[in-house]
Amino acid sequence: MGTGELDPWGTSSVKDYTRLRTEFGIDPVAPLLSRFKKLSPHLSRGIDFGQRDLGRVLDAIEKNNPFAVMSGIKPTGDFHLGTKMTADDMIYFQSLSKKTTVYYAIADIEAYADNGLSFEETSKIATRNVADILALGLDPDRTVVYFQSEEVKVMRLGTVFSRGVTNNMLRAIYGERQIGLYMSALYQAGDILMPQLPELGGPKPVLVPVGADQDPHIRLARDLAGRYKDEYGFIPPSSIYHRLMLSLGGSDKMSKRSSSTLLTLEDQPKDATKKIMSAFTGGRDTVEEQKRIGGRPEVCPVYDLYRFHFARNDEHVKQVFYECSKGVRLCGECKQEAAGLVKSWLDDHHKRRDSLMGDARELLAKSRDFLSSAGK
Amino acid sequence: MGTGELDPWGTSSVKDYTRLRTEFGIDPVAPLLSRFKKLSPHLSRGIDFGQRDLGRVLDAIEKNNPFAVMSGIKPTGDFHLGTKMTADDMIYFQSLSKKTTVYYAIADIEAYADNGLSFEETSKIATRNVADILALGLDPDRTVVYFQSEEVKVMRLGTVFSRGVTNNMLRAIYGERQIGLYMSALYQAGDILMPQLPELGGPKPVLVPVGADQDPHIRLARDLAGRYKDEYGFIPPSSIYHRLMLSLGGSDKMSKRSSSTLLTLEDQPKDATKKIMSAFTGGRDTVEEQKRIGGRPEVCPVYDLYRFHFARNDEHVKQVFYECSKGVRLCGECKQEAAGLVKSWLDDHHKRRDSLMGDARELLAKSRDFLSSAGK
Repeated sequence: MGTGELDPWGTSSVKDYTRLRTEFGIDPVAPLLSRFKKLSPHLSRGIDFGQRDLGRVLDAIEKNNPFAVMSGIKPTGDFHLGTKMTADDMIYFQSLSKKTTVYYAIADIEAYADNGLSFEETSKIATRNVADILALGLDPDRTVVYFQSEEVKVMRLGTVFSRGVTNNMLRAIYGERQIGLYMSALYQAGDILMPQLPELGGPKPVLVPVGADQDPHIRLARDLAGRYKDEYGFIPPSSIYHRLMLSLGGSDKMSKRSSSTLLTLEDQPKDATKKIMSAFTGGRDTVEEQKRIGGRPEVCPVYDLYRFHFARNDEHVKQVFYECSKGVRLCGECKQEAAGLVKSWLDDHHKRRDSLMGDARELLAKSRDFLSSAGK
Repeated sequence: MGTGELDPWGTSSVKDYTRLRTEFGIDPVAPLLSRFKKLSPHLSRGIDFGQRDLGRVLDAIEKNNPFAVMSGIKPTGDFHLGTKMTADDMIYFQSLSKKTTVYYAIADIEAYADNGLSFEETSKIATRNVADILALGLDPDRTVVYFQSEEVKVMRLGTVFSRGVTNNMLRAIYGERQIGLYMSALYQAGDILMPQLPELGGPKPVLVPVGADQDPHIRLARDLAGRYKDEYGFIPPSSIYHRLMLSLGGSDKMSKRSSSTLLTLEDQPKDATKKIMSAFTGGRDTVEEQKRIGGRPEVCPVYDLYRFHFARNDEHVKQVFYECSKGVRLCGECKQEAAGLVKSWLDDHHKRRDSLMGDARELLAKSRDFLSSAGK
């Protein structure tokens, strides 16, 4: 790489990711990369770093066997860049085989319970969210979208699981938490395992793309798959983990809690520009110092914008990384460039999304018919 | 009464009922009896012994204000005599005012989770259960019946409540239990409070008739009504408690766990006769002894059949009690008489129920339409 220990695909918390592997048994993605015919930006840039049983999904792809990809969203109005990362993975894996079905859960009951949003509001937001994922490239012909509040199959599984888990098992995975969190975890396990129900074609590999912080849900679903194997024939679900972006404030992950440091797909381009121009960076105290010793892209949320979403290609990411590290790229111009990329991406995305609202409604109606008649 | 301390309306566990009053704050029914225009057998025979806030329901009756009665069943095929007692109370209170609406919940998700019954099976059983309550005298014009698996309003409330309760609160009420029991308790609280949602006419008194062992659910629902008062305007639900019947084995309450000592509305008359003829009684070791010192109706499940369900009237119950106590009624003839009453009751009930299956289906369809359009 020519720069010693510098690694454009690394992050400051790479130690934590190593811990995930040793402590939780999440395996690295790297050894499996040669089995992919084409790499997504998440794979080629080391953003997807870990997996459980991804090999089982690759087997299905290679043998042209059916498998499912499962993901979802809480429709509270913020389709943010973290949500986009999960959606990008989902869409990428759907594209790898004609035998994939995507299951996409809209957590409207949680939106009601946690955010006080009415079902009318969430239904409106959810339709736009579905248009968002269509605009990102989802193939509606192999997708089933459903509202939690309508899908009794998930409720049923969650209830069955609640009779089969021990409180100690939930405490071991989540710590001592309110019953509401436990319940919602059990319903999520229902979401993850539903695609394997007999009325939906029976046991099959299911891939769940998630942020690294969501692994407890995967562990629970895999544990339950084992406990209910005799009854349902469940295959333990597979997972792939992406790194978490830095918030524009520079700390933690990008989250819904702080809107000034969070980019969402709802942002107007000019608001996005404002947020980016006032973002924390990995720059030095003075221009002089930065020119002399270089910036620190590995702690820079603006660099993350390039790497995770908006760079033209892998070469472009590398270019930003090395120019910054060597002090030839300064923060002002770098932010300008990023803001320009984000603006044109958002303009483009909004246009596409708005033109897909009808398709989103159609997909929701088609999915509802499919699920209510499944197995009848 | 002429027999000293003997009381035909007492039971061997009257001490426990007194404890319920002092420890849990369940108030006696007796001081309110003068406010009823007519007494049900449950009231005149001291079977309904306790209440919380029943006065609020009596106020509504006297002022001709709307109120609701809420009850339900787990459709596992056993509409037994304990279930009938709750139904009898429900139907009686419905009859006291033209402004009552009965809400009847069919716990099909629990039947699936706990008993492995498919939704097709439970749906069939549930239709028969609804015909059962119609045959017992329910007025379908002021009744809403719903399946747990279809009623998102309940699911929504259960989820909201799960975010608002603390684990300590649930432990204080139920002890340390599996999450499945806690969840089902929260959904039951949803059942109890649903009739007060704005789309169902808003806050109103709601009476829940239950067995004395079900008070924890009432305490939880009342506690939640208080916690969510600001948001929903909930009025704490009222309750009325009936004594528990002895099983035909003589111990515990009649329960679904032991079919040979349990009478159900599904029993063929000849099977019911067999169960009664081999029941435990309050008789003495020998006929001679029984004639000399009398039997013990207060521990006799056959006496309970007369008192709780099948006696022709209150006088008949008293007659059985005193004849037994004085040794002039022996167990064989007493069982014969009871079996005859049960047989003719069951014959009659089965005929009426079978003729009401169409009405039951109609009530289910009408209720579904009502709930799915409520508030829209």
